[in-house]
Amino acid sequence: MPKKDSWLLPEGISELLPEQAAHLESLRTDLLKTFACWGYQLVIPPFVDYLDSLLTGSGHDLDLQTFKLTDQLSGEMLGVRADMTPQVARIDAHNLKHEWPTRLCYVGTTLQTLGDALEKSRSPMQIGAELYGHAGIESDYEVIQLMLEMLAITGLQNVHLDMGHVGIYRALVEAAGLNQQQEAELFDVLQRKARTELAELVDQFGIADQYINIFNALPKLNGGVEILARAAALLNIGNDAITTALQDLQVIATKLQRDYPALTVSFDLAELRGYHYHTGMVFAAFVPSVGKEIARGGRYDNIGAVFGRARPATGFSADLKVLAALLDGENQPQAQCVFAPAFDDEGLSQTIRDLRASGTQIISQLPGQQGTAEQMGCNAVLEKQDQQWVVRPLGNQ
Amino acid sequence: MPKKDSWLLPEGISELLPEQAAHLESLRTDLLKTFACWGYQLVIPPFVDYLDSLLTGSGHDLDLQTFKLTDQLSGEMLGVRADMTPQVARIDAHNLKHEWPTRLCYVGTTLQTLGDALEKSRSPMQIGAELYGHAGIESDYEVIQLMLEMLAITGLQNVHLDMGHVGIYRALVEAAGLNQQQEAELFDVLQRKARTELAELVDQFGIADQYINIFNALPKLNGGVEILARAAALLNIGNDAITTALQDLQVIATKLQRDYPALTVSFDLAELRGYHYHTGMVFAAFVPSVGKEIARGGRYDNIGAVFGRARPATGFSADLKVLAALLDGENQPQAQCVFAPAFDDEGLSQTIRDLRASGTQIISQLPGQQGTAEQMGCNAVLEKQDQQWVVRPLGNQ
Repeated sequence: MPKKDSWLLPEGISELLPEQAAHLESLRTDLLKTFACWGYQLVIPPFVDYLDSLLTGSGHDLDLQTFKLTDQLSGEMLGVRADMTPQVARIDAHNLKHEWPTRLCYVGTTLQTLGDALEKSRSPMQIGAELYGHAGIESDYEVIQLMLEMLAITGLQNVHLDMGHVGIYRALVEAAGLNQQQEAELFDVLQRKARTELAELVDQFGIADQYINIFNALPKLNGGVEILARAAALLNIGNDAITTALQDLQVIATKLQRDYPALTVSFDLAELRGYHYHTGMVFAAFVPSVGKEIARGGRYDNIGAVFGRARPATGFSADLKVLAALLDGENQPQAQCVFAPAFDDEGLSQTIRDLRASGTQIISQLPGQQGTAEQMGCNAVLEKQDQQWVVRPLGNQ
Repeated sequence: MPKKDSWLLPEGISELLPEQAAHLESLRTDLLKTFACWGYQLVIPPFVDYLDSLLTGSGHDLDLQTFKLTDQLSGEMLGVRADMTPQVARIDAHNLKHEWPTRLCYVGTTLQTLGDALEKSRSPMQIGAELYGHAGIESDYEVIQLMLEMLAITGLQNVHLDMGHVGIYRALVEAAGLNQQQEAELFDVLQRKARTELAELVDQFGIADQYINIFNALPKLNGGVEILARAAALLNIGNDAITTALQDLQVIATKLQRDYPALTVSFDLAELRGYHYHTGMVFAAFVPSVGKEIARGGRYDNIGAVFGRARPATGFSADLKVLAALLDGENQPQAQCVFAPAFDDEGLSQTIRDLRASGTQIISQLPGQQGTAEQMGCNAVLEKQDQQWVVRPLGNQ
């Protein structure tokens, strides 16, 4: 027997009704069209996969977030994708195998056992683009540009971009000689931005004073482009990886200032978003009305290694549901919707066919039905004038 | 550790690579646009739902086909949708609650534990349209027309339509006084079209000779429109439901002949496709190259009852992956794709922006990359002529 409340949805699971769905669909189409114009080809990875394959190249986080299913056909463990990026990397590494840069994009529903603490959603509709096979900052910049284009098409104002580089932290950890345990503790404290704890922690590490100072200063390397110069002075320890990372951030900053003069950009060298996953530059976009990032991305080289082919990679993703909801219902012009009376008349049928073929929405009245043209959401009716079926707008159209 | 073959996909699960994905996406957009022109509004039901809610209004078949998940947040049992129709019915009954006819459409991935024996797919991308709130044959005919329109847009030739009416069998079972066990056995034999078994079975039922004759004749009521007259003679037992059902089929047959003179239509009164689910007219579309129906539908009144609101309903659905694969790669004109050289030049950037804004696909060369314009799939390049960046077609364009 079904429960009384069989219309309830599980927590963090949503359904989209006509108005929201139409808005999301229109944004989806526009974004995929734009991705195509930038050379990013759509791929459609499967919703379920062998669990091993899904958790490849990612950390424990994804494991906990992945719903597990037993496959009745094979007896193997399947997983519902909690993130589409590993699947797209597999397509690049295993199916396409190009020697040259490969640009792919995707959109699809993902499912998470726990969801995101802030978002509450457990079923983001992930949309994103990935560029494989190029290690230079030109590809980083291309995906940042495409992410900004996506937000512009979404209609968002006052976008803020936050840039970081996990390679800097990675190089510092290595240079300071931290063991895995220490690295994990330090990572945790930095993520929580707990500065007092940070000072106590690094004191216990038994590392050179130089690194104690650097780790303590890391959370302060957070602000406008000017912090890159301060970082260069502070992190001047003769480490090539760090020097290159800071130079790369400077180049990107200059390009952004030139191409997007109105965009506010900040840099945060202690921001380790996606640290287990990313290898280089990372970035996230924010808007004032939302408490967390609305799009994020970065470099994650070598993700394809487990699929037999390590390739440089960079990309971004967002939750299309979140993007669509940000401007839901705003300034959406109402398209013409015509109510056609219930007559079995060849002239009427032909007029309806022609109008539909030209993209007009026609709702046919059904014999004996309730509901007026207006109640059905129509703003015009088809009526016969001088032997011709014509569209007559309703009300103050 | 990931397995060596971490790129393998589970049986019946597929991924779509760029060419197939582009074709499917283009068909998806065209179909949703057409559904909108007919007044069918898109809804996006959730991928998972409480199990009770998913199995509502459907039979045991759907239960076996449904992947079950334990919800870590609520401890309740969730199911991954194996069919989207019950979800859309819930949206009509619970969320929209209109007094007038409601037209909804949907497209989305479904998942099945075992899949379809013939298709092999366990993850159809279900696309469909449903009309709620009208019991007359005008709504049956509207959804049949829209299904045929969908197949026409897909580009299919030689579509064959198969019509049936489960109300006839239902009325016969009731009139003959069969019990539930007998009804199930008869249903099984009819589904397998096992005529010898059928004769033995109905002999054991202890029912009036009239009904023995009728049940034995049922599988022969299969052919062109002419079988409707034979059926009217054979089934002339004074049962209103049967008389009306046959009249309705005759009306639809006449309309189809008038509106689609080239369409071949057959009638099969022993066809009980979706019997547990449907209540009236049922229909399925076939094409010569595919061994099973490529789209199907019918009337299934009262599906919303468990959601607090019984409404007449009729609709159809198909697997968009199957539709797209039928014409994959045929006659698809190649769009222009332009390769832009790796120069940091404001004029070039501006040209690229303008071309992309007008819908042209541009792939930017990345410094040091491998791959020529042709290898990257481009059929034109951007080059500087007389201080202007212009598009030059490649090869024999």
